[in-house]
Amino acid sequence: MKKEELEEIEKMDEALRRRRESLHMYPEPGFCEVRTTSIIARTLTDLGFDEVLTGKDVCDADSRMGLPDQKTLDAAYKRALGEEETDPAFAGRAKDGFTGVIGILHCGEGPTVAMRFDIDALPVHESKDPSHYPTAHGFNSRHEGFMHACGHDGHTTVGLGTAAFLIRHRDQLHGTLKLIFQPAEEGVRGARSIVAKGHLDDVDFCLGSHMGGAPDTKALCIGAGMNGSLATTKINADFTGRSAHAGAMPEKGNNALLAAATAVLNLHAIPRTSQGDTRVNVGRLIAEGGRNVICDNAHLELEVRGTSKEANEYMEQYAVRILNAAAEMHQCTVALNYVGAAATIVNTPALVDEVRKAAGEAGMPAIDTGTRSAGSEDYSFMSQCVTGHGGQSCFFNNISRCAGPFHSPIFDFQEEALVSGVKEFSQLAFDLMQKK
Amino acid sequence: MKKEELEEIEKMDEALRRRRESLHMYPEPGFCEVRTTSIIARTLTDLGFDEVLTGKDVCDADSRMGLPDQKTLDAAYKRALGEEETDPAFAGRAKDGFTGVIGILHCGEGPTVAMRFDIDALPVHESKDPSHYPTAHGFNSRHEGFMHACGHDGHTTVGLGTAAFLIRHRDQLHGTLKLIFQPAEEGVRGARSIVAKGHLDDVDFCLGSHMGGAPDTKALCIGAGMNGSLATTKINADFTGRSAHAGAMPEKGNNALLAAATAVLNLHAIPRTSQGDTRVNVGRLIAEGGRNVICDNAHLELEVRGTSKEANEYMEQYAVRILNAAAEMHQCTVALNYVGAAATIVNTPALVDEVRKAAGEAGMPAIDTGTRSAGSEDYSFMSQCVTGHGGQSCFFNNISRCAGPFHSPIFDFQEEALVSGVKEFSQLAFDLMQKK
Amino acid sequence: MKKEELEEIEKMDEALRRRRESLHMYPEPGFCEVRTTSIIARTLTDLGFDEVLTGKDVCDADSRMGLPDQKTLDAAYKRALGEEETDPAFAGRAKDGFTGVIGILHCGEGPTVAMRFDIDALPVHESKDPSHYPTAHGFNSRHEGFMHACGHDGHTTVGLGTAAFLIRHRDQLHGTLKLIFQPAEEGVRGARSIVAKGHLDDVDFCLGSHMGGAPDTKALCIGAGMNGSLATTKINADFTGRSAHAGAMPEKGNNALLAAATAVLNLHAIPRTSQGDTRVNVGRLIAEGGRNVICDNAHLELEVRGTSKEANEYMEQYAVRILNAAAEMHQCTVALNYVGAAATIVNTPALVDEVRKAAGEAGMPAIDTGTRSAGSEDYSFMSQCVTGHGGQSCFFNNISRCAGPFHSPIFDFQEEALVSGVKEFSQLAFDLMQKK
Amino acid sequence: MKKEELEEIEKMDEALRRRRESLHMYPEPGFCEVRTTSIIARTLTDLGFDEVLTGKDVCDADSRMGLPDQKTLDAAYKRALGEEETDPAFAGRAKDGFTGVIGILHCGEGPTVAMRFDIDALPVHESKDPSHYPTAHGFNSRHEGFMHACGHDGHTTVGLGTAAFLIRHRDQLHGTLKLIFQPAEEGVRGARSIVAKGHLDDVDFCLGSHMGGAPDTKALCIGAGMNGSLATTKINADFTGRSAHAGAMPEKGNNALLAAATAVLNLHAIPRTSQGDTRVNVGRLIAEGGRNVICDNAHLELEVRGTSKEANEYMEQYAVRILNAAAEMHQCTVALNYVGAAATIVNTPALVDEVRKAAGEAGMPAIDTGTRSAGSEDYSFMSQCVTGHGGQSCFFNNISRCAGPFHSPIFDFQEEALVSGVKEFSQLAFDLMQKK
Repeated sequence: MKKEELEEIEKMDEALRRRRESLHMYPEPGFCEVRTTSIIARTLTDLGFDEVLTGKDVCDADSRMGLPDQKTLDAAYKRALGEEETDPAFAGRAKDGFTGVIGILHCGEGPTVAMRFDIDALPVHESKDPSHYPTAHGFNSRHEGFMHACGHDGHTTVGLGTAAFLIRHRDQLHGTLKLIFQPAEEGVRGARSIVAKGHLDDVDFCLGSHMGGAPDTKALCIGAGMNGSLATTKINADFTGRSAHAGAMPEKGNNALLAAATAVLNLHAIPRTSQGDTRVNVGRLIAEGGRNVICDNAHLELEVRGTSKEANEYMEQYAVRILNAAAEMHQCTVALNYVGAAATIVNTPALVDEVRKAAGEAGMPAIDTGTRSAGSEDYSFMSQCVTGHGGQSCFFNNISRCAGPFHSPIFDFQEEALVSGVKEFSQLAFDLMQKK
Repeated sequence: MKKEELEEIEKMDEALRRRRESLHMYPEPGFCEVRTTSIIARTLTDLGFDEVLTGKDVCDADSRMGLPDQKTLDAAYKRALGEEETDPAFAGRAKDGFTGVIGILHCGEGPTVAMRFDIDALPVHESKDPSHYPTAHGFNSRHEGFMHACGHDGHTTVGLGTAAFLIRHRDQLHGTLKLIFQPAEEGVRGARSIVAKGHLDDVDFCLGSHMGGAPDTKALCIGAGMNGSLATTKINADFTGRSAHAGAMPEKGNNALLAAATAVLNLHAIPRTSQGDTRVNVGRLIAEGGRNVICDNAHLELEVRGTSKEANEYMEQYAVRILNAAAEMHQCTVALNYVGAAATIVNTPALVDEVRKAAGEAGMPAIDTGTRSAGSEDYSFMSQCVTGHGGQSCFFNNISRCAGPFHSPIFDFQEEALVSGVKEFSQLAFDLMQKK
Repeated sequence: MKKEELEEIEKMDEALRRRRESLHMYPEPGFCEVRTTSIIARTLTDLGFDEVLTGKDVCDADSRMGLPDQKTLDAAYKRALGEEETDPAFAGRAKDGFTGVIGILHCGEGPTVAMRFDIDALPVHESKDPSHYPTAHGFNSRHEGFMHACGHDGHTTVGLGTAAFLIRHRDQLHGTLKLIFQPAEEGVRGARSIVAKGHLDDVDFCLGSHMGGAPDTKALCIGAGMNGSLATTKINADFTGRSAHAGAMPEKGNNALLAAATAVLNLHAIPRTSQGDTRVNVGRLIAEGGRNVICDNAHLELEVRGTSKEANEYMEQYAVRILNAAAEMHQCTVALNYVGAAATIVNTPALVDEVRKAAGEAGMPAIDTGTRSAGSEDYSFMSQCVTGHGGQSCFFNNISRCAGPFHSPIFDFQEEALVSGVKEFSQLAFDLMQKK
Repeated sequence: MKKEELEEIEKMDEALRRRRESLHMYPEPGFCEVRTTSIIARTLTDLGFDEVLTGKDVCDADSRMGLPDQKTLDAAYKRALGEEETDPAFAGRAKDGFTGVIGILHCGEGPTVAMRFDIDALPVHESKDPSHYPTAHGFNSRHEGFMHACGHDGHTTVGLGTAAFLIRHRDQLHGTLKLIFQPAEEGVRGARSIVAKGHLDDVDFCLGSHMGGAPDTKALCIGAGMNGSLATTKINADFTGRSAHAGAMPEKGNNALLAAATAVLNLHAIPRTSQGDTRVNVGRLIAEGGRNVICDNAHLELEVRGTSKEANEYMEQYAVRILNAAAEMHQCTVALNYVGAAATIVNTPALVDEVRKAAGEAGMPAIDTGTRSAGSEDYSFMSQCVTGHGGQSCFFNNISRCAGPFHSPIFDFQEEALVSGVKEFSQLAFDLMQKK
């Protein structure tokens, strides 16, 4: 990238910050990103993208996981309509959980390059402490109980900035560029439905990125090739029994709480496996009833993980067997819902090299981030799909000094990273889509 | 009782029904009976009772169990102030969970007779079906989510009716009459605090009663001597652990949900005892957190029961040991709150005979109700206290045709039972307090 | 009974003691009572009983429960052959677990009266302390590890004494007399197979008895009508999984020990029932393997009990469901063997009166033993069968001062009780089989 | 090594095979290696080693783990005395579990080099199939139920061969050579007691080796630097409760089996840790009692493992907490015995290079065996000690075609590996102890 091009991006700094701050003020959780979606779609349309896919054209309806209930979706839609910047036409298409946007530029012959940006927020109460940057600068969450606590406001902004820059330089691009603004990454619920729709089937190079860093990070840089993402499956289990008076006729009841407790203990007791390191957690158990009534309901939210596909599948199958047997043991039934899933991320070494090289070309240091993260990321489904048909994939980190842990009420990244992100993605587009 | 006295009571029928219907419309749960308390205290005062104890004179503050939180108490007080019939002065004394009233008549030398009437309601959504008598007659609950579903509105009305009748005939009474209007019987939380205050220490004859009957009950009658009430202890257990990311650093967490599940399973597995038949139930378990976070909290609501004091104590001690050990096992802490307790009811045979005899004198059939109920009743603490120092106690049923099970949204008793109750209690006062 | 008849029985005292002492020296556990059986059959034959049923004529082969393995049966047979008093011919018929004898007297028209005597011993190491009567008198167990620690040597002796007396007085009897010497009462394994063979189908009056008493018992007496025997089911469960190296490939194993532990915890956690008081116990768990190997086997010995048939059936069905589900949960299989069962004993009030009356006629005091025993007795199947078709049944206690608890190494009863037993049974035969 | 030296070793082939076959015929489990020990000590003495440490000079008495009971030790001693080749004097010193030998050569100034050879056998029934080489060649186990199923007969033979060769060439050695013949490696019980005695404190280079290979191994070779050994702790837990009749008075008992089942489930449920991959297994549970008796005993044999010291310590501490809390929960006590432990093996890269180089010098191929084994090896304590004070350590594989899995009844290695082992160890002594 030429010096003037880099400067052109640096001049976007102020606009990128404003865009990010506006998104930060209106955090929307997965499949509820109505305002966010409408802003993205309006922006790409105004920029003149050849195609701007929205609504049912983005996600395969049935492959969306962990979809909120209709009441929640309706409320999200209604709320968005009343908020600044929301575009009513695009909001309408995002109703009922059909959020997300794909912007496409057709630039003649050449490879197809996909760039993925995730757009959703978390159910976290944002800090109101004045030491928290968004609070100090007056742009913290207007949606009480929700917060962009994982940097997806930044990801979205980088995506829109990259769109703006690249369309101005589309003559340097050869091939097809797909900017994928994915809903519902939190809980690893959305990516699979975009893959299921076929959008990754023709992709030669697939790129994703996540903000990275810690309070003691010294300098902005690009972490080339994030490894160690765990394969995971997220399950909700609802046990149903029968209630009865616990003093007078306990035998008339079927104790769902007892079944659930048996399941919890045995889930944690799934034997380790040599197929990889594993995890299992039941993070929530709600069994509601009177003290003197045999409890007829229990709702569990759980997840299993593994450092390999095989290890995760072993855990998942064992967990399902336990849940079913625990229900049967106490004459209850159990309904299982798969509400999220991610695979392990595969990084193609050649594309990791490209990411590193692009960082250098764009004047940024690149480091290796090969350490084990023990988190999960549903970009993995995209990497799996693309590398599965012979394409290349790389997921990299956009590293800056971050305040507080990810998902915490005081999470924040350096806004300078917005420019870094646009530079890296743009440089990669130049490199991968140059005429050969 | 003379014929004209019986007729005098029968003429109270209309007034008793109106009183009961008014109470039914404003059901107040345990320790929140502000309006109810103020009406009772106002009525006894107006009737001219020698003493009308209210506020901190009724219950020992620290012996009240399962007291609602301050917010709930405040809301109950505030609501009552705005409702018809509430007497603000007496309401003020009932603030902060100091509900309940004791009315005393001093009638010279003679035995001390206590009669207990419980006054609280339940968290039940009352049926709005027109076949439900209170709905059909326009007096169903104005407090959505609460209902007099156990007949305490009737008990309170019988108490007030008995007060009105007996004060008119106080010349026939010798000794001391205590009418105890007890708060918070549901959950067996209130009686012990009245006993702790010493009100039963000088009682020679103690009487309590509960509405009885079923949909197929043929005729009004008195069930003399209800046996089979189970001793019970109600405990809330709050486990506290430490949260941590379940994928990245599970070992940093202390898993309160795992501790709770271990406790649930082992609580149900407390070995049986030859000291009596037992019960144990965990009716509620709330452990809230994210799926991918080691859960740091778990709230359990449980109860143990036994057909004997020994059996219940065995269960309680074992349960406490399990809860503590389960917490320790997973490096959590657990806080235990005793939120209710009842003993087994002791009926003195001689007083059971008196109850039977009184029914006959008042023109009502009497039956034996010796069957096992497997429920619990905190009148038991009063019977335990009184029989413990050599007095006599009897708990009897006031039986009529009842619609639906007790505690159900369609529970109702025959309003004719109000007159029955006043007759029985009044006759007993005449018999036990006659000049010897 | 006339004075001279009572004296005739009293003169049998010495002979009864010697018979009992000989039986005591050679205790044989259930279905291994080869010597005992041969002695009974030889005695009844020599006495001239009309029929002496042995071998496969006594028990229905397939209804025998908890049959020892063939090796044990063979060893028992072989051992008996080498012991004094064993009759080889009758021993031969008792091979392979076909122990037990029924002696029949046909005395013309009249009722059929059955008397049941159980003959087996227990796996208890008999005390060698000189204060223990059998040790002091030189007749303690010659079968190390086995002992008549429940008085069945006495029961058998009483049966044989009754046989000897009654055949001498058969002219006073009208009807049919069946003396049933039942094998394998310990573990409640044998009675059902005698019932299954049809021997109780034509019985009008059925009688059984057990030694009773405690170290502080004052005087010999008859306890008329023992109640409170628990219904019970005895089950062996064998879990089979798959072994694997616990370090290298734990996921290749199916952990039978984990399945068994889950079962144990849940078995004890079977909710209580209003159908009766219950018991559950896993008394033995053997899971053998190397520390570093996923355990592929677990053997459980368990029992459930209930004060009613319904309560026991509830426990049994729940237990079976738990065992199966626990196996399935950990991908193991489980094989269940029913190795014992008893019902609750039904005593016909009229026959209890006869027992009491007979004691008086025979010069012995009779007391009520209505208290709850919480043990189990498979005479219950006989009482169930006989009362089921309209006959009468009574199980009574033959009470004397007993040293130590039943089943303990120092158990002993007063030998005077042998005469008491013969008197009671003989008197009952006289009373029930007199000409009408 | 010169060609004639290599040939000298090759000529030892026949003798090495005979030595190994003799050891194979008399397999002795850990701390029972009386005959084996006496043969080693006699041989080293006859060879003229400067010091031959035996008896209490080898192991620190109190640091020996998992010592068999005295009866087993006595039987082993007595048996050995009656067997061919046993040297009575040295056998006497090996009594009471003081097996193992250390032979020392003092060769002036220079480094101290330790070589460790483990000598114990396993409780495995050796195959009698003629396809099994030791069977076919008439040298399979004379100790029914025990077998050299892990190649320690080979290790011992290599050690003795190396001793014989090196003492003949001691003029080429500078420094001190310690040949450590360690007892009780199986169950990782013996090494720590040798370390505790201080024998490794002055060691500069420490070497250990294990037979390696599989049925499809093509050629003999040296695997330089075996990694992936898991840190582990082996614990026996004995729960003690109180027995009681399960029907009559279950509350009088303290149920050790219930405590053990709770422990088993929770042990397997110890949450995973980010400190490393882990393992946990309860391989044996023996709880013996009557079905109708509350079980008062339960014996558990368990192990935890971790790929790091921290992970294993986390598991061990959690396990101990669970065992104690489970006992407390059911009012039992638990006694814990640490019967084995191993650390992770640390290989010093420089010494791994020496091992590889030595193989080349001795004419053997060397391969990398960096894969994860998921087994444990108590040589790790030696490597930990030596590298802890600045020395170097390497554990390598002596690879040949092996029949059947390690620890299986058909395990066997190629006898040609005996010569390989002597060559490798001897070459290493030459290399490490040459004059500088």
